[in-house]
Amino acid sequence: MLAARPATVAWLCGYVIELDGGPGPFALSPLLLLRPDERPLAVVSEDEAPAFAALGCDVAAYPGFTLAPLDPVAGARSALARTLGGARVATETGWLPAALADGHRLVDVAGELVAARAVKDPDELEALRAAIAVCDAGQRAARVHARPGISELELWASVRAAVDEAAGCRTALVADLVSGSRTADVGGAPGARVLEEGDLVLCDLVPRVRGYWGDSCATFAVGEPDDAARAQHAAASEALARGIAALGPGVRACELDALVRDGLDYPHHTGHGLGADWHELPRIVPDGDAVLQPGMVVALEPGVYADGRGVRCEQVAVVTDDGCEVLSGHELAL
Amino acid sequence: MLAARPATVAWLCGYVIELDGGPGPFALSPLLLLRPDERPLAVVSEDEAPAFAALGCDVAAYPGFTLAPLDPVAGARSALARTLGGARVATETGWLPAALADGHRLVDVAGELVAARAVKDPDELEALRAAIAVCDAGQRAARVHARPGISELELWASVRAAVDEAAGCRTALVADLVSGSRTADVGGAPGARVLEEGDLVLCDLVPRVRGYWGDSCATFAVGEPDDAARAQHAAASEALARGIAALGPGVRACELDALVRDGLDYPHHTGHGLGADWHELPRIVPDGDAVLQPGMVVALEPGVYADGRGVRCEQVAVVTDDGCEVLSGHELAL
Repeated sequence: MLAARPATVAWLCGYVIELDGGPGPFALSPLLLLRPDERPLAVVSEDEAPAFAALGCDVAAYPGFTLAPLDPVAGARSALARTLGGARVATETGWLPAALADGHRLVDVAGELVAARAVKDPDELEALRAAIAVCDAGQRAARVHARPGISELELWASVRAAVDEAAGCRTALVADLVSGSRTADVGGAPGARVLEEGDLVLCDLVPRVRGYWGDSCATFAVGEPDDAARAQHAAASEALARGIAALGPGVRACELDALVRDGLDYPHHTGHGLGADWHELPRIVPDGDAVLQPGMVVALEPGVYADGRGVRCEQVAVVTDDGCEVLSGHELAL
Repeated sequence: MLAARPATVAWLCGYVIELDGGPGPFALSPLLLLRPDERPLAVVSEDEAPAFAALGCDVAAYPGFTLAPLDPVAGARSALARTLGGARVATETGWLPAALADGHRLVDVAGELVAARAVKDPDELEALRAAIAVCDAGQRAARVHARPGISELELWASVRAAVDEAAGCRTALVADLVSGSRTADVGGAPGARVLEEGDLVLCDLVPRVRGYWGDSCATFAVGEPDDAARAQHAAASEALARGIAALGPGVRACELDALVRDGLDYPHHTGHGLGADWHELPRIVPDGDAVLQPGMVVALEPGVYADGRGVRCEQVAVVTDDGCEVLSGHELAL
């Protein structure tokens, strides 16, 4: 099996690609070939070869950061051709570049791989706990630093600094950070809007730590919220609490979705799995047919968006043999 | 022509992909089909469709962020098949997923597209100027906030905040930020190391603004540098000045490389183009055969790494009809 999706490679061998600069000029995304009775073989640039070797992989490398003309596509194609030698191979055709596929007999198994990642191993749970602890630190910083007169972008700087400090390194970080009437938009990037007394702040933090993504959302007031905001927050909180109380093995995703969504009208999923991707199986959606199993990790995030404001509350929990364990430690109060 | 590389899509129509979370679960990377005498056609998720329409593109959309089961690969494949209808198409096969290539007659033109991007249009130069102004702000913050007793990661938080503030939004940002003996490693991510009196700080900032990447590097001392550091800095500065003085139309990349590298021994390119990718043509390398032309934008970045420390100085300039114009405005002094 030839893994081509970054999350699959991270899941299989622990190698985590950098995201800061997007697809770079020196290498294609790493490929990892699983072979019966042999070590995994990484088809990667020479720059990445030492890291894959340290993770226990064999390596077929092509030139990376070099003074010679750049052609990582030709390099990867040639390294892969040497490796596969015409064999039939299962792979992820949505992530394998067409230039590398030419001449090989490919069978797509992307769906099977995504399904296999849904139940977490103990080492994955440790990584997820670490990522969620980083979420907690970021959420704490959001509450500490939010005050009338600073912009969303200034608040964001404090939150991001706290996330990186808690992780001990620069982290990849997906996030919504919006305030006031912008909370009605469900999410968005922090901007120039200046926080005012009585505003709601909706903060959804999704940092990656050691290759695994945490997730968390809280909505809180700057100063005193009004009664309508309190009512919305109570409705979202209660929906989340219902979901956590019901989360356990044997529950169907559609049932959990209906239970949490009851009486609310949010335009998104109720929840999703979390791991080497920030949104994966099981998806907690109206037609979700997944049956929850111990070891699945689920983020639940009901929201109430109405009357020019929005509230969302989110916690992550791992399904246990007889219910679930909440991993999130951040404050949810308004 | 079917553009598949994010930088090509940005270059052609101005659409900029988010990088924070890497490849997401809801969509593949956007594809953009150029057709004779018609508007460009974007093959993208429904989430991205409004943005492409606003940029003047027709759109063939597939479901994106949805409550239904996720299968952006099947969605994109089907949308593309409707669009291409078996025609022969020039494309970038290193970026087009194999799942989408199946059944189409593809001709790779990635090399031609990279070459076409080397000379910048006026609107691209404006975007590059904006990105480089953001570099300047980040470099200023690095000098203001660097002091004995704070960690690289704390300094990084201030630099990143200044970059986002100058850009007016959260920016994608590639960077080296290392101090003391870590500067000998050429680059690296900020870490726990605490700055000390006399340290060098090497700060290379590469932010993306409106789809175009700035670039900048400075090396400066915390407090008083020693004589050896001064000598290394002088050598790197003089090499950069030689390069800027020589940069102009008709100059060959290999000649420029030799002129700047003379007497130095840095293990990397002398420079590179800059645009919708953070490292593109022309590459200023020992065997570089590109001939510089007006409108090319070049970052020059000679370095001196020796005796347990490293210095690198970098400026970006645009080639003009009779020389070059330096776009960088950041301080280079030690």
